Amino acid sequence: MSGNSFGNLFRVLTFGESHGHSVGVVIDGCPANIPISIEHIQRALNRRRPGQSLYTSPRDESDQLICMSGLEKGKSLGSSICLSVKNKDYRKKDYDELNDLYRPSHADYTYEMKYGIRSKSGGGRSSARETLARVAAGALAEQMLKFFCPKLEVIAFTQSIRNLSLKNDLLNVSKDEIYSSQLRCPDKIIEAQMKDLLNNVQKTGDTLGGVISGQIRNCPVGFGEPVFDKLEADLAKAMLSIPASKGFEVGEGFSSTLMLGSEHNDIFINKSNEIRTKTNHSGGIQGGISNGEHINFRVAFKPVSTLFKKQMTVNKFKENIPLKLKSGRHDPCVLPRAVSVVEAMAYLVLAENFLKYKARKLI
Amino acid sequence: MSGNSFGNLFRVLTFGESHGHSVGVVIDGCPANIPISIEHIQRALNRRRPGQSLYTSPRDESDQLICMSGLEKGKSLGSSICLSVKNKDYRKKDYDELNDLYRPSHADYTYEMKYGIRSKSGGGRSSARETLARVAAGALAEQMLKFFCPKLEVIAFTQSIRNLSLKNDLLNVSKDEIYSSQLRCPDKIIEAQMKDLLNNVQKTGDTLGGVISGQIRNCPVGFGEPVFDKLEADLAKAMLSIPASKGFEVGEGFSSTLMLGSEHNDIFINKSNEIRTKTNHSGGIQGGISNGEHINFRVAFKPVSTLFKKQMTVNKFKENIPLKLKSGRHDPCVLPRAVSVVEAMAYLVLAENFLKYKARKLI
Amino acid sequence: MSGNSFGNLFRVLTFGESHGHSVGVVIDGCPANIPISIEHIQRALNRRRPGQSLYTSPRDESDQLICMSGLEKGKSLGSSICLSVKNKDYRKKDYDELNDLYRPSHADYTYEMKYGIRSKSGGGRSSARETLARVAAGALAEQMLKFFCPKLEVIAFTQSIRNLSLKNDLLNVSKDEIYSSQLRCPDKIIEAQMKDLLNNVQKTGDTLGGVISGQIRNCPVGFGEPVFDKLEADLAKAMLSIPASKGFEVGEGFSSTLMLGSEHNDIFINKSNEIRTKTNHSGGIQGGISNGEHINFRVAFKPVSTLFKKQMTVNKFKENIPLKLKSGRHDPCVLPRAVSVVEAMAYLVLAENFLKYKARKLI
Amino acid sequence: MSGNSFGNLFRVLTFGESHGHSVGVVIDGCPANIPISIEHIQRALNRRRPGQSLYTSPRDESDQLICMSGLEKGKSLGSSICLSVKNKDYRKKDYDELNDLYRPSHADYTYEMKYGIRSKSGGGRSSARETLARVAAGALAEQMLKFFCPKLEVIAFTQSIRNLSLKNDLLNVSKDEIYSSQLRCPDKIIEAQMKDLLNNVQKTGDTLGGVISGQIRNCPVGFGEPVFDKLEADLAKAMLSIPASKGFEVGEGFSSTLMLGSEHNDIFINKSNEIRTKTNHSGGIQGGISNGEHINFRVAFKPVSTLFKKQMTVNKFKENIPLKLKSGRHDPCVLPRAVSVVEAMAYLVLAENFLKYKARKLI
Repeated sequence: MSGNSFGNLFRVLTFGESHGHSVGVVIDGCPANIPISIEHIQRALNRRRPGQSLYTSPRDESDQLICMSGLEKGKSLGSSICLSVKNKDYRKKDYDELNDLYRPSHADYTYEMKYGIRSKSGGGRSSARETLARVAAGALAEQMLKFFCPKLEVIAFTQSIRNLSLKNDLLNVSKDEIYSSQLRCPDKIIEAQMKDLLNNVQKTGDTLGGVISGQIRNCPVGFGEPVFDKLEADLAKAMLSIPASKGFEVGEGFSSTLMLGSEHNDIFINKSNEIRTKTNHSGGIQGGISNGEHINFRVAFKPVSTLFKKQMTVNKFKENIPLKLKSGRHDPCVLPRAVSVVEAMAYLVLAENFLKYKARKLI
Repeated sequence: MSGNSFGNLFRVLTFGESHGHSVGVVIDGCPANIPISIEHIQRALNRRRPGQSLYTSPRDESDQLICMSGLEKGKSLGSSICLSVKNKDYRKKDYDELNDLYRPSHADYTYEMKYGIRSKSGGGRSSARETLARVAAGALAEQMLKFFCPKLEVIAFTQSIRNLSLKNDLLNVSKDEIYSSQLRCPDKIIEAQMKDLLNNVQKTGDTLGGVISGQIRNCPVGFGEPVFDKLEADLAKAMLSIPASKGFEVGEGFSSTLMLGSEHNDIFINKSNEIRTKTNHSGGIQGGISNGEHINFRVAFKPVSTLFKKQMTVNKFKENIPLKLKSGRHDPCVLPRAVSVVEAMAYLVLAENFLKYKARKLI
Repeated sequence: MSGNSFGNLFRVLTFGESHGHSVGVVIDGCPANIPISIEHIQRALNRRRPGQSLYTSPRDESDQLICMSGLEKGKSLGSSICLSVKNKDYRKKDYDELNDLYRPSHADYTYEMKYGIRSKSGGGRSSARETLARVAAGALAEQMLKFFCPKLEVIAFTQSIRNLSLKNDLLNVSKDEIYSSQLRCPDKIIEAQMKDLLNNVQKTGDTLGGVISGQIRNCPVGFGEPVFDKLEADLAKAMLSIPASKGFEVGEGFSSTLMLGSEHNDIFINKSNEIRTKTNHSGGIQGGISNGEHINFRVAFKPVSTLFKKQMTVNKFKENIPLKLKSGRHDPCVLPRAVSVVEAMAYLVLAENFLKYKARKLI
Repeated sequence: MSGNSFGNLFRVLTFGESHGHSVGVVIDGCPANIPISIEHIQRALNRRRPGQSLYTSPRDESDQLICMSGLEKGKSLGSSICLSVKNKDYRKKDYDELNDLYRPSHADYTYEMKYGIRSKSGGGRSSARETLARVAAGALAEQMLKFFCPKLEVIAFTQSIRNLSLKNDLLNVSKDEIYSSQLRCPDKIIEAQMKDLLNNVQKTGDTLGGVISGQIRNCPVGFGEPVFDKLEADLAKAMLSIPASKGFEVGEGFSSTLMLGSEHNDIFINKSNEIRTKTNHSGGIQGGISNGEHINFRVAFKPVSTLFKKQMTVNKFKENIPLKLKSGRHDPCVLPRAVSVVEAMAYLVLAENFLKYKARKLI
């Protein structure tokens, strides 16, 4: 109710300022007796961590996960699960100069207007560091879902950076192919071009945005709660809650507006005695409910707001002043790390919808 | 929790199958002593009603609003407000033939798989008739907001149908200009082209989609609850919950992915001693919180699934069969009516966020 | 969130002023395909209805149930279910004289202070007529539970009126025995004494209170969600939300405070190869979770506030004035009708807890 | 939704097994810029801590509070606040012998049946150690309320242990008088008798229960949300969620059932130009809404289940076996420590209701 929690039956509540004591999450609603590997969660955190390549922030966040409650001997107890990470790379000075001014397109101004107070330094809750808690929760949700729906899987990857884009939907790409790419882009040729682009833009102190594709494979029929909690509505909220995201589309998305009904409709067919659709323009959801086809969606991320070139802005006294950040600990492009967050948020949506589905099915 | 309610502090819970007794909504959380005009709500329903032009369904739904509770002498009592409309144009026969088959890209199949039962005829809760309840609730939310934030206003209009699109954002268009257009498109030249397109496509039994633009004008600074309940996340969920919507973007949206950070950042300036931004690429929201600029967003609607030309599909027995609907009571394009729904959902998001904001501000 | 809804997974939202258009409820979360008899719900309403005996209010509320949505051909559709009753016995005049004063121990004063407005006449939402919607929802919850847990049953009866009390817990009393008693007191001798007492007190224009006993029989092991949503905590909230209730206890309740631990502890035993307890001082709940024994509890109801003898009070202008109501349409004792409400609220608690339990159990 | 959270607008979510890594709480919804003293919270934890006297458990839990997020420089940031305490006095061996059997009237059996798994030792989430998190959250809520309603105050004290009871309601007792008493009983003579009783019972290995009185002083008019979220209903739920509580009553409570309406009604009077009531049988709440009088209530606590004398029970194999615990680290009577928990839960109820009230009041 004040924005730090997501979900009801599988509720996560995150906490932690980017330069405070810790960042973490409490997960309330995971069924008991589910095998949960902390190592699996740690690996997910490692993938999200900055400092892994030239293309992500050099800030060292080793992000050692602490399990404070809810798990014992590799299993969930049915109680609330608290996972946290200490903030150790705390370099307060970097930010001091910024306390009196509002960085363009950051949350400094809106936070201060809303709350009348700002975290001592850094972005507080608006920092990307907050997403660490989402990734931890998502990796736990993934394991819960694996227990009940072994084939269900979420895949996310970098679809485009600026105008460099994968040519088609990669329906069969594997997690390994994605994770082995620094930019989380499974096409090596495009990835090489993206790296060149990033290098060139980074030299000028500028930044880039792009699109992340998400796929939910083997989602059982029946997830999603019409009217207001349609599966795509839950996904849209989840994705638009990620820092820097500006758009979401499912299936054909905005392109569907250019199609005729007869082009867009997915004809039902009998396929090996199962009811399936011939095409999948709907993106695996009809009437807000999963139809058994793969769910695919895309999320738009704007270019990173933190530039290392001069910009004008105003300070608290409403004076126009120039802003030029020195050294950088920020990503020139959020996409490679955001892939983990998109994946995590999709798992959280699925965990919630699975439990809702389970609560009311007859058998 | 099973999809029929939206919001918490300003909660709406809708009910009603398209061919059942009534369609309606209960609004729980409207403050007491707010002037509420039932006529204002009725007018909003009239605008959403089909049968207003050639371009919307000829079904006659006079939609006479009944206030069952919560209002007296033009004011809210502080209790739950029930508004309903009886279903009188109930022509069961139209649908009988469809009971055993699954219409392509409709919710027939997913509803039956999820619930094991389908409403006797028509779309049940998946029918567009359900949106009537949203419009009623939205028109009530609008009046509540008018009381507390007199300048706050939501505008929505048809931005494009297929490839016919308004050339630029209409920042100053008025509600009158929109409502006086049959297609809710305030540019008369484009509207004329759209009408031609609709006529031509309708003759072939086919359907169209398009994009609706929404604007929230004069939103106070501070609406929206980071981390998960960012204002754009709430809007995204609201819009993707509308039948046939497939995408949402705010500010520059997907286009922002093509911009450099230095192009996209909104520079803060002192404007008549107020802190404002020079540009508004962010679309009025930063860090999930309204920044005082106009909020603008777009929603993609796929072409209508109900065609009046032959399609193949399968029936309950998994047999392939042809489907050709005869007479039509469906819109060839959902956009003109969906404009009212987009507007209503934005008001519901704002009502919820206003009360959350009010609950916690210091003075 | 503003008090008109109860439950989350099995959510009920009630509406209706006592002298407005209708009183009703929307139930959101009932699984699909459950057999639901409207007649069963109507019978429950009939039992709650006043005017059935000398001992309840002579107001005629025939309370004809209208099903507005969610049910077809005797089954739930999985959508929200709206049930309502029109207010026809609307005698506005009775109350006019009261509009400017505050009846002692009624909600007139607190409602006006909180909302700044009062329903035109009568108690608005604070009237006992509101409980009609609870009884309808409870009778629906009962049928849902019957489908999944056929043996589960709620029993409630009048335990005492003033100092006339049943001597012991009636563990085997049947619903028939209770419903066939005008006072819902299954002991005919005590009931006769209670009738005498009621007659005598009613002649003086005074009123009485008492205690209602509730039993939940054959509750499966495992209902209830520690820490905060213990089964007894949910029951306590449910019961204290009933108009005029002032206390709740479970198991030995307040008497347990007089016992030693060695007297109170329920020893586990092997009973026909099931683990059971030798005694049931805990009242069927341990650690907030049902343990398979019968759950028993008691609810205290204060004497009715509406007297037909002279009282002093103040009016809106803070002047002391006498109040003497003339004719009466109020119960001299709320117990006989409240039995239905206690039963309904217990069913609502069980429906919610059953779905929560179902959502997370492994198989 | 799985029992570990309380409240919506002022939501607390607790975590931690009694013998795991930590016990803690996340508070989501505290307004920003509120002065919060960690020392104040630590003092509240110290008062709850066992090992303070002969009459509470000798277990040493120094309970050093760690603030993990949400507070800086003595003020709330508007973000989620995580407070935790490490479990250092972890003596696993004490409990090993118990892993295979079910202690009478403990949660061992119901937890294992519900979750299929038990925390490695000790009571897990059913242990009284869980209440530490409530006390921390309550002490934070207290400070938030102090900011907005400076005179509002919650008082709780030991009203009775077994048959030793304070003679009357102590309307003017101060927190100092209560906290300076080891048994939290402000009458020194009764307290001395209680100590004797406790000593005698403890020698036999037995345990005691009792009643705690709570008072909410200077509650503004208008807190509480009818119909279902009446202020007394919220209090009842809060109190019945405390381990070992078996009953709740407000105002005259169960005694009201013995009164006539004319005896129980609280006559409104003009008192120094304010509307007040002559008596306060209603206990400060009418129609579910606070009326400005002091709110008073009582909570029944059963005798502690952990005995140090022989009892019979069964083990997992359903075999009858004797149970005799050796050394003791458990309280012979929960009352002295539970006083802090009653106080905390009342503050949590008030914080939630205050924010709901604030969200909707017109000015």
